[in-house]
Amino acid sequence: MTTSLSKSPTIGVFDSGFGGLTVLHALLPLVPTAHYIYLGDTARLPYGSKSRETIARYAVSSAKFLHQQGAELLVIACNTATALALEDIQQALPIPVIGVVQPGAQAALSASSSNPVLVLATAATVQSHAYTHALNALGLAACEKACPLLVPLVEEGWINHPVTNDVIKIYLTEALTAAPDTQTLLLGCTHYPLIQPAIQRVLASLGHPLTIIDSAHATATAVAACFTNVSRSEGEPTCTFYATDSIEKFQRLGSNFLGQPVADVNLIDLGG
Amino acid sequence: MTTSLSKSPTIGVFDSGFGGLTVLHALLPLVPTAHYIYLGDTARLPYGSKSRETIARYAVSSAKFLHQQGAELLVIACNTATALALEDIQQALPIPVIGVVQPGAQAALSASSSNPVLVLATAATVQSHAYTHALNALGLAACEKACPLLVPLVEEGWINHPVTNDVIKIYLTEALTAAPDTQTLLLGCTHYPLIQPAIQRVLASLGHPLTIIDSAHATATAVAACFTNVSRSEGEPTCTFYATDSIEKFQRLGSNFLGQPVADVNLIDLGG
Repeated sequence: MTTSLSKSPTIGVFDSGFGGLTVLHALLPLVPTAHYIYLGDTARLPYGSKSRETIARYAVSSAKFLHQQGAELLVIACNTATALALEDIQQALPIPVIGVVQPGAQAALSASSSNPVLVLATAATVQSHAYTHALNALGLAACEKACPLLVPLVEEGWINHPVTNDVIKIYLTEALTAAPDTQTLLLGCTHYPLIQPAIQRVLASLGHPLTIIDSAHATATAVAACFTNVSRSEGEPTCTFYATDSIEKFQRLGSNFLGQPVADVNLIDLGG
Repeated sequence: MTTSLSKSPTIGVFDSGFGGLTVLHALLPLVPTAHYIYLGDTARLPYGSKSRETIARYAVSSAKFLHQQGAELLVIACNTATALALEDIQQALPIPVIGVVQPGAQAALSASSSNPVLVLATAATVQSHAYTHALNALGLAACEKACPLLVPLVEEGWINHPVTNDVIKIYLTEALTAAPDTQTLLLGCTHYPLIQPAIQRVLASLGHPLTIIDSAHATATAVAACFTNVSRSEGEPTCTFYATDSIEKFQRLGSNFLGQPVADVNLIDLGG
């Protein structure tokens, strides 16, 4: 895959909203010579509670937009879109497309013994069983747990909040009852890295510490592997952001996910 | 308004999702001779976190669909769409269009002394200040409080749940600090009637009971007033449901809001 990609590539990063900025955050130091084009389909978020057909339609139109803007490689930095529409996107575009599920599963393989991997994700990702299929293909068992309230809690900004701790405890207690022997927790949603410290604290309080795999970081590593000709000490990455809804909100919320100010946001209409 | 409407009217009811079914639930016994067409724009929900331009675009296309299906009167059973797009919809359609804000404000006037009315609503409804404008026009002061987590909690089914109680308590404590003299609480989101008992319990525990106004019920009463020639003892209402995303989910979640099984759901594509 490396041969056709330039040394200063244009990399498209797509998410339904802000969560994919955690993938971009992990990517910036790994491929610093790239120009990044990020699209948050904020007018149609969240994808996590919608059907496969609707998600595929939204994701393909978003991916085509990034290709039109010059992306040479596309990162689907959204677990739900990867789980339900990766093949549709790959078929629709003539460029390499990397999702978050496969890298997450690979990272779990590196960390895991043969116990089931516990996967926390949105309702749609869990219903797709994409992580179960990817983990099974690597010889690992999986136990998936839908956590619909975690995205709204992160977007409310309740990162370090007793209510968020309570909700995490409820979800994890249910999940650990179903998979008491698990040693590995895979964060199957790009919002979840923001509450990883809270998840770790809850696991400690339950007396059940787990190795936590963050699919955002695993994906960034997989993308960087496509650019072996790029030095990490060269260059300064540049970013252009597109959103389908409020620019002001994208700048305000996005900076929490990116870990730095989000500037240069352009509003676009994908016809939704 | 009553003269041009038939005795067995076709009434369109629109919401971004399921919440408007609480308005339909209140309408069925008040105008039992009607045929109801309900549209939940579930592929593009939630509206409550999106911008005015996006909400207006979605709401107008949804309203036009219901008019094309034969609606003689349209109820915008969505606080966010009413707050941000009622005028756009009224200008786009040649039929009477009734939103939820004005009836809610009127009901608060009937219940209130001159203390500020406390309004709980989504972020977008609060940012529009539609309730403040409507209440001020009636000579009432308003204090609005955005409660972004209540819709996700209701949709998770955590109606009677300690976490929901905690979240309600946090929101109400903040709101009552800002408006300590309020006597009246207006539920400015059609999801909130489902947690009205929990809200009442929290208010009692805070030692601050309030008269609760439900804009869903107030709107149904306002719609019924357009049909003074209809007897409440006549006929049996019929309903046709349309959704822009998963029919299965609409049937499953919708029955909680309607208080009876939701059958005959049709999937439509509004181009989102």
